[in-house]
Amino acid sequence: MEQGSNRTQPMRAKTGSAAWRKVEECWSEGKFLCVGLDPVLERLPAAIQSGDPGERIFEFNRAIVDATADLVCAFKPNAAFYEQYGEAGYRALSETIAFIKSNYPGITVILDAKRGDIGSTTEAYARAVFDVLGADALTVNPYLGEEAVRPFLERADRGLLILCKTSNSGAAEFQDAIVGDTGRPLYLVVADHVARLWNSRGNCGLVVGATYPTDLGRVRDTVGGDVPILMPGLGAQGANAELALAGRGDPSWGLIANAARSVIYASAGADFAEAARREAEKLSVDLSEALK
Amino acid sequence: MEQGSNRTQPMRAKTGSAAWRKVEECWSEGKFLCVGLDPVLERLPAAIQSGDPGERIFEFNRAIVDATADLVCAFKPNAAFYEQYGEAGYRALSETIAFIKSNYPGITVILDAKRGDIGSTTEAYARAVFDVLGADALTVNPYLGEEAVRPFLERADRGLLILCKTSNSGAAEFQDAIVGDTGRPLYLVVADHVARLWNSRGNCGLVVGATYPTDLGRVRDTVGGDVPILMPGLGAQGANAELALAGRGDPSWGLIANAARSVIYASAGADFAEAARREAEKLSVDLSEALK
Repeated sequence: MEQGSNRTQPMRAKTGSAAWRKVEECWSEGKFLCVGLDPVLERLPAAIQSGDPGERIFEFNRAIVDATADLVCAFKPNAAFYEQYGEAGYRALSETIAFIKSNYPGITVILDAKRGDIGSTTEAYARAVFDVLGADALTVNPYLGEEAVRPFLERADRGLLILCKTSNSGAAEFQDAIVGDTGRPLYLVVADHVARLWNSRGNCGLVVGATYPTDLGRVRDTVGGDVPILMPGLGAQGANAELALAGRGDPSWGLIANAARSVIYASAGADFAEAARREAEKLSVDLSEALK
Repeated sequence: MEQGSNRTQPMRAKTGSAAWRKVEECWSEGKFLCVGLDPVLERLPAAIQSGDPGERIFEFNRAIVDATADLVCAFKPNAAFYEQYGEAGYRALSETIAFIKSNYPGITVILDAKRGDIGSTTEAYARAVFDVLGADALTVNPYLGEEAVRPFLERADRGLLILCKTSNSGAAEFQDAIVGDTGRPLYLVVADHVARLWNSRGNCGLVVGATYPTDLGRVRDTVGGDVPILMPGLGAQGANAELALAGRGDPSWGLIANAARSVIYASAGADFAEAARREAEKLSVDLSEALK
């Protein structure tokens, strides 16, 4: 397997994929942090507590993005937090993505929407996420299999981050089910399929929660170094980030470590943007230490 | 198990759940058909080919709904087909749901969005789908487990249709993986968990594609008669609908049989609504025959 041989190389591996070009550039500068943009109106700072909900969310996001952009490899808005505000939320999501792309073109925008449907519907989702909203990457649910996801995979310039082991406490219910005579849990079978069978265009990555550091290491051992891993749940468990790079010669590659609430709600005061930056800096340092 | 004992009863079983009250009423009138509202602008009839995209989609949906409402137990808009048109699409979706609820309050609106995320995000999706859009039921992806889905399950008055065996040709990749020493494929393990562990409020159902009639029978045998089954893919394979009711004494219960394109695009002419009704009538007759 190519992954296996790359893992022994001392040089930084590259996917060679247009989908990960921007994030690879950030990794080469030592930036592994991703900030999750998950707005909740009630938690916005007092300074942004009046006016149209969509405009308030956009104003908040813009301040967070401006304050942290030079520290991150990606921003990750989660679709649910916008959909809960209806049309105004949709507008805020659309404007947020457009703002990042036009002001920080080197930063990858991951839409965390965990989409997954049959092929003809996936085509419509691909248009919605990549063409209408303009996201660079999307989180995807693997339950329906490669054939259903194909219209996403065919967008070679866009990244797909496939759910593997999710960060929630009940993730094991199906993800840890041992599959047939492989002796492996479902999440590792998913990881293996994605790396070997889904990733012919080099645009696939995996989602593995920071809350399962041992599983993160097993996934990295399974897929080798060329498959990016989005690791949600940073903050509480950031020190375990090194495990996501287990099995690689060069640690300066491959991880998108997401923190959301701990950064964006670091302060509810007028200093919320500065506080978000301080928290992002702290996480970046922790991450660099862990990855050394 | 309760499911097992109910299966031997000659009388129609009831979930007793507020979530399925409306659909049970329709079943008692012999209506099992669900019409999928999946708009594609290019396929709208010539009569609706100009004007604002959102208004055209709503106008089209309204005509289809008016023409078929007395034949169906549910309408099922798929979120992707609206999201692909951005804000205009969102507005059309919102107006379509509001129109059905206000004009046909006895018909269940299923939002087919296959959502699934960690708990705090699921809360936001629940608000988006049930409170903002006002859907009666939602399709849900089981990959993250019961703990993640709990904020949906706690909405006792809303239905959750959990993906079990999906209708796409590549569904087997993970769904047919044999789980541990159960000897059962993942989709049956999902069905079993949903019926035994997730369904304490009686608001869960399952999604099983009409394209896998044998698996449909196995699911019904596993969960008994009290778990509604949404069966997409009707049209080509309608004659196999009877298998969805295998294991039950009374066939006049439990099935939501969805058809989309074959109904809504039955004609591209000025008679599109009448043609949709004719096709829905034909499917209803086929379904009644199969269920006899």
